[in-house]
Amino acid sequence: MSRQRATAFVPGHVTAFFSAHPDDRPVAAGSRGAGLTLTDGVTVRVSTTDGSGAAAAAVEPRTIRGEPGTIGAVEDALGALGVTAGERVGADGVAVAVETDLPIGAGFGVSGAATLGAAIAANAAFDCGRSENELIRIAHEAEVGRGTGLGDVVAQARGGVPIRLEPGAPGVGELDGIPADSRVEYVTYGELSTEAVLGGDTTALSAAGERALGRLCEDPRLPTLMAQAREFAADADLLVPEVATAIEAVDDAGGDAAMAMLGRTVFAIGTGLSDAGYDPSICRTDTAGARLVRDAECE
Amino acid sequence: MSRQRATAFVPGHVTAFFSAHPDDRPVAAGSRGAGLTLTDGVTVRVSTTDGSGAAAAAVEPRTIRGEPGTIGAVEDALGALGVTAGERVGADGVAVAVETDLPIGAGFGVSGAATLGAAIAANAAFDCGRSENELIRIAHEAEVGRGTGLGDVVAQARGGVPIRLEPGAPGVGELDGIPADSRVEYVTYGELSTEAVLGGDTTALSAAGERALGRLCEDPRLPTLMAQAREFAADADLLVPEVATAIEAVDDAGGDAAMAMLGRTVFAIGTGLSDAGYDPSICRTDTAGARLVRDAECE
Repeated sequence: MSRQRATAFVPGHVTAFFSAHPDDRPVAAGSRGAGLTLTDGVTVRVSTTDGSGAAAAAVEPRTIRGEPGTIGAVEDALGALGVTAGERVGADGVAVAVETDLPIGAGFGVSGAATLGAAIAANAAFDCGRSENELIRIAHEAEVGRGTGLGDVVAQARGGVPIRLEPGAPGVGELDGIPADSRVEYVTYGELSTEAVLGGDTTALSAAGERALGRLCEDPRLPTLMAQAREFAADADLLVPEVATAIEAVDDAGGDAAMAMLGRTVFAIGTGLSDAGYDPSICRTDTAGARLVRDAECE
Repeated sequence: MSRQRATAFVPGHVTAFFSAHPDDRPVAAGSRGAGLTLTDGVTVRVSTTDGSGAAAAAVEPRTIRGEPGTIGAVEDALGALGVTAGERVGADGVAVAVETDLPIGAGFGVSGAATLGAAIAANAAFDCGRSENELIRIAHEAEVGRGTGLGDVVAQARGGVPIRLEPGAPGVGELDGIPADSRVEYVTYGELSTEAVLGGDTTALSAAGERALGRLCEDPRLPTLMAQAREFAADADLLVPEVATAIEAVDDAGGDAAMAMLGRTVFAIGTGLSDAGYDPSICRTDTAGARLVRDAECE
C-alpha cells in the first residue's frame, strides 16, 4: 500500500571549509570538512499527478518555488529509485514540488537538499522500501554525478553541525559533529559557481581544508569552526570583497562570521551580523537533519 | 567561558529485537538489532550548585523526577568528562536533574538516555570541548560498563527508527535506519531486569536476534520491524503473559504491536492499542535524536 504522496524537509547547509576527494565511484567520492545545517531548508513534495494514464505521464510536473523547473540530480535520484512513469508509479506521472526560502547557488546546498528530499519523499510516497543509508547514498551519488556538490547530502542527512571526517556516502564516509545549538544569521550577495571551482585545480584549496579539519578535530567547538573557516577562505583564495567587508564588520562589532563555501554569502553565529548593522536572514542550527514531515492537510 | 548550566533531551528507545555482543572493550561491546526512538524521552539538566565552595561541593545534588536519586552510568560519564567538584567545575558541586514521564525499568532505555543527556549537557555547561561521537562513546561505555544496556545510547543519539548493523560506539559500530515517521502507543505492566536477562545465557536470544535483523535488512519497513519483533519475543522466550494478551488484542483489531526489550511493555504503531480498547500513552517516533535544548528561562 503506497501513500502516493509524501513530503520531506532537508536543512540548508553552509560549508565552513572543505577538501575535495574525487573518486571514480560516486559512492566514495566526496569531501572532508565541516559546516552548519540550518533550520532554513528545502521542502520537497512528491506525488502522483492528479490526472491518470498516458496524458498525465507526459506532463511529469516539476516546480521550484511554484515555477516550472528541474534539478538534474533530483531526476537522477528518482531514476535510481525506479520512480518514473511506467515503473513503480504505473500510468500516472510523478510530480515534484521544491519549496525553499534559501537563495539558490549561494552556498546553502539547495541542490543537495532537493535531491535528498526527493529521495526520502519518493521512497515514502511509492513505498520503495529503501533504508535511510540507501536513500542518502542515492542522493549523494546523484549530486556527485552532476558535479553540483560533494558533501552537502551526508551533512544534511545528519543535521546539527556536522564534521565530515572521511568522504563518501554511508558505509564509506564517516561523520562526527560539534554538539552545539546556535542562532545563525546570513546575508547573500549572489552566486558563485560550484562547478567552476570544483572543476579547476583544487590542490591548494584541499591542502587548506585538510589543515582546517585537523585543527577543528583537536578542538571541536563552534568558535574554532568559524576561525578555521576564515583562514580557509583566505588560504584558498576564495574570499570575495563584499563577504570580506562583512566579516570584518562583524569582527569589529565583537562577533564571529565567515564565508559560505561556495557562495557569495556571509554567515554569523548569534547576532553577529545584526550587531554589525546588517539586516540578515535569521535561523538556527538544525537539530534533526533530513526527515519526513506530515502533510498538514492529511492529519 | 562556560555557561555553567545546560539541558539536553534524549528520546526514549524501545528495542524490537537484538543480539548481544559482549567485548572486553566497552567501546566495542554492544548489540545489533532495531527499535523505535520516541518523542517521550528524558530531559537532563546539569548545572553548578547554587552555593559555592566546599560546603556546596559536599552536596552534589542528584534528582530523578525531583526526588533524590543517582544513576551509576550517569556518574561514570561525568567522571569520564572530568566534570566533578575539584576538577573543571572548581569548588562548586555539580547538580544533575533527570526528568522523564517514561516508566523506569520497563524497556524505554531511560538509563541510557539519562547518561547520554548528562554527557551532552555537562559538555555544554562546562565547555569540555568533546565532539558528538566522543560524548556518545562516553555514554555508551558507561552504560555497557554498568550492564544496564547495550544498544540504547547509539540508537538514542541517532533518533528515528534506528537499525544497529554492527555493535559498539561511533567509530566501531554501524547504524542505518528505517525512513519512517509514525504515531506510537504503549502500555506498561512493570519492570523486567535487563541485568538478569543479559547476565544469563544469551545464545538462543542472539540467534533469534540475528535472524530478525537479516530479515529487516532485506525489507527495511515498519511492518517488517514489528513482525520480526513478535517473532523474536516468541523465539527468545521473553514474552510475558500481559504483553502477549495485548499483542493478540491489537492483532484482532487489525493493528500491529510488539513487546519492548527488555520490559513488561507493549508498543503499537498508529492507533493499534487504542483501537483494541486499551488506554495507552501516546507519542511519535522522534526525528532528531539526542540534542541540546534551550532553557526557556534563558531565552
